[in-house]
Amino acid sequence: QINADRLWDSIHELAEIGPGVRGGNNRQTLTDADAEGRRLFQKWAEAAGMTMGVDRMGTMFFRREGEDPELPPVYMGSHLDTQPTGGRYDGILGVLGGLEAVRTLNDLNIRTRHPIVLVNWTNEEGTRFAPAMMASGVFAGVHTLDWAYDRVDAEGHSFHTELQRIGWIGAEEVGARKMKAMFELHIEQGPILEAEGKDIGVVTHGQGLWWLQVTLTGKDAHTGSTPMPMRVNAGLGMARITELVHTIAMRHQPRAVGAVGHVEVYPNSRNVIPGKTVFTVDFRSPDQETLDAMKAELEAEAPKIAEALGLGIEIEATGHFDPVTFDEGCVAAVRRASDRLGYSSMDIISGAGHDACWINRVAPTSMIMCPCVDGLSHNEDEEISKEWAAAGTAVLLHAVLETAEI
Amino acid sequence: QINADRLWDSIHELAEIGPGVRGGNNRQTLTDADAEGRRLFQKWAEAAGMTMGVDRMGTMFFRREGEDPELPPVYMGSHLDTQPTGGRYDGILGVLGGLEAVRTLNDLNIRTRHPIVLVNWTNEEGTRFAPAMMASGVFAGVHTLDWAYDRVDAEGHSFHTELQRIGWIGAEEVGARKMKAMFELHIEQGPILEAEGKDIGVVTHGQGLWWLQVTLTGKDAHTGSTPMPMRVNAGLGMARITELVHTIAMRHQPRAVGAVGHVEVYPNSRNVIPGKTVFTVDFRSPDQETLDAMKAELEAEAPKIAEALGLGIEIEATGHFDPVTFDEGCVAAVRRASDRLGYSSMDIISGAGHDACWINRVAPTSMIMCPCVDGLSHNEDEEISKEWAAAGTAVLLHAVLETAEI
Ligand SMILES: NC(=O)NCCC(=O)O
Ligand SMILES: NC(=O)NCCC(=O)O
Repeated sequence: QINADRLWDSIHELAEIGPGVRGGNNRQTLTDADAEGRRLFQKWAEAAGMTMGVDRMGTMFFRREGEDPELPPVYMGSHLDTQPTGGRYDGILGVLGGLEAVRTLNDLNIRTRHPIVLVNWTNEEGTRFAPAMMASGVFAGVHTLDWAYDRVDAEGHSFHTELQRIGWIGAEEVGARKMKAMFELHIEQGPILEAEGKDIGVVTHGQGLWWLQVTLTGKDAHTGSTPMPMRVNAGLGMARITELVHTIAMRHQPRAVGAVGHVEVYPNSRNVIPGKTVFTVDFRSPDQETLDAMKAELEAEAPKIAEALGLGIEIEATGHFDPVTFDEGCVAAVRRASDRLGYSSMDIISGAGHDACWINRVAPTSMIMCPCVDGLSHNEDEEISKEWAAAGTAVLLHAVLETAEI
Repeated sequence: QINADRLWDSIHELAEIGPGVRGGNNRQTLTDADAEGRRLFQKWAEAAGMTMGVDRMGTMFFRREGEDPELPPVYMGSHLDTQPTGGRYDGILGVLGGLEAVRTLNDLNIRTRHPIVLVNWTNEEGTRFAPAMMASGVFAGVHTLDWAYDRVDAEGHSFHTELQRIGWIGAEEVGARKMKAMFELHIEQGPILEAEGKDIGVVTHGQGLWWLQVTLTGKDAHTGSTPMPMRVNAGLGMARITELVHTIAMRHQPRAVGAVGHVEVYPNSRNVIPGKTVFTVDFRSPDQETLDAMKAELEAEAPKIAEALGLGIEIEATGHFDPVTFDEGCVAAVRRASDRLGYSSMDIISGAGHDACWINRVAPTSMIMCPCVDGLSHNEDEEISKEWAAAGTAVLLHAVLETAEI
């Protein structure tokens, strides 16, 4: 069994680095805080006897040698970067849970046939440098290295410059590693496991996603002195398309979700009719057909709304991934581990995107989820219990052990 | 007749101070550019033989003596401050049109019985320090001086500190002046005069206004992993209330307008369901009953929308003025002046708030409007023709002359 207190202490020691304003974390990717967090993690992982490799995306790989070093390693891990107002567990649990698994193997003097590698993927969150899951995406061949290097943050700094600046650019080619399998432990970031009273989510699928950006162009004009029939109100158009996004998601639920999350209004002044709005749509479904139908419905219906108001409209796809079916063998290993340890579990679909979703394209992969309070995540108030963290970590350890072979 | 070229040259010379980024102006109140613009105006007004008074709100008064200095003066003017992305004419035409009127009187050696005073009211725009029409509001006794002094800008500077810093705080008590009448020339800021092909708007009324701020409180949660029925989406609530605002205005038009202009979404992230939105409603009507009915309808119907979505709601009134009926005598003087000069004119209601709306409470007041291209204002692309400016200025001169008695 793993050491729940040691795991919990490490999580909260790391959370001292890049603290948020009310108990969470702001340790965004490639900031000084990210670098400091990486150094602490390196210290711990090396103290646990592992050796580090860093690739050109800054992803950190710690290897625990196997009895047969020639065999492809079993990977586990997640990410240590956070949202600007993020929690202490999103990503971190998957990395430090993996660390705790290795510490436990060391305590018990267990050797595995296959090497085990613990990973911290760079820039999972994607808030500072879009898109999310960037390093795992390059690893899986979804993005090129050069494209990723050229991403810029809001201040105009490039990913490449910032990765160099914080001193965490490695020499290793991205994606060159062999993998027998990869397991990612993560908090659910949704309310289902807690509502169902389950300890463990056996993640069988990941939702696919379409991110769309809608731009409406009207005419900014004085709210007081422009008669109603002479208005070309881009704010009203945004309101109607926000309602449409909700309607489309409701048409296809329960196997679909959708919302408008990010909004910009120009000139955003109390006495000016909005002349331009730019806003983002996030549609998700585990079913390819549903996912694409939602996008097609928006593309068919939103222009009618715009036209009726005299607005110009542009719809641009800014992010996409197909629904993911995780590897049957890995999923079964997680289910067996949970059963063996006596935890209650249920099959679950990951609502969010994770590094595991990209890695699943190049190696057998699956995920383990644990509940989080009220489904809250991407929020400083994100909370889990020590018991939930320990259960998830124990299942991770057992699934990895079975796959790495004792 | 006035000198249209001289007027036009002065307008564009002043526009060199605090230029915008694409041809307009950013000469916000109490900035260095405001101070520089004031100095140029002072130079011109003194060269035209007038003497300056400055009150404790920084409002500039230039007096052209009358044959009988004991008679109450006739005032004319507007404001020289601009929006952050404002035009060259909004407010400026009314001040420099008044200057041109005085220059013309000087050229023709005309004396009036009553003194004439040309005014530049401080902080009409209200963008940097809310509310709008601040100095005229203090002058009319709507706000106290201390309250106005305590207003702060987005950087936390107070109105008082900034007025001192730019060196334009006067010693004169605010509102102590006697006025026979006041006339304000202003661009329409709406599309009606241009659409109707009229040179002059005879402003009979000003709309009343209710500014409301709505705060919706939901729960920010991950867009991907939160099932549709578990959402408390403050963005969707904002969309529905934006539609409601439009519906209410449409119910009461043509004598009503309304829109949502300023919007804040928290956390405003593409994959987070908005947990909180704050947005502003601007309702206007020339009819008191209609104005109050619109507010009452919003206060009755918006909470139902919020409740249906599980959202908390707060509605706060942040600005208000009653509809204005301008002085019959002043309105008639403007109409006569326009007829006498052979301009086409129509009665019009001011859609926007103006310094004249406050001054009307303490002295007989009215306004003259001239068309602006496409109704565009509060926009760097604001445009008027030299002929429109000249016509408005000529009508101003004649209305003032009649009232100040030759
Ligand atoms: N886990 C997570 O929130 N990843 C970011 C991408 C997404 O929105 O799913
Ligand atoms: N003229 C003008 O735009 N004043 C600002 C107050 C308003 O919105 O009416």
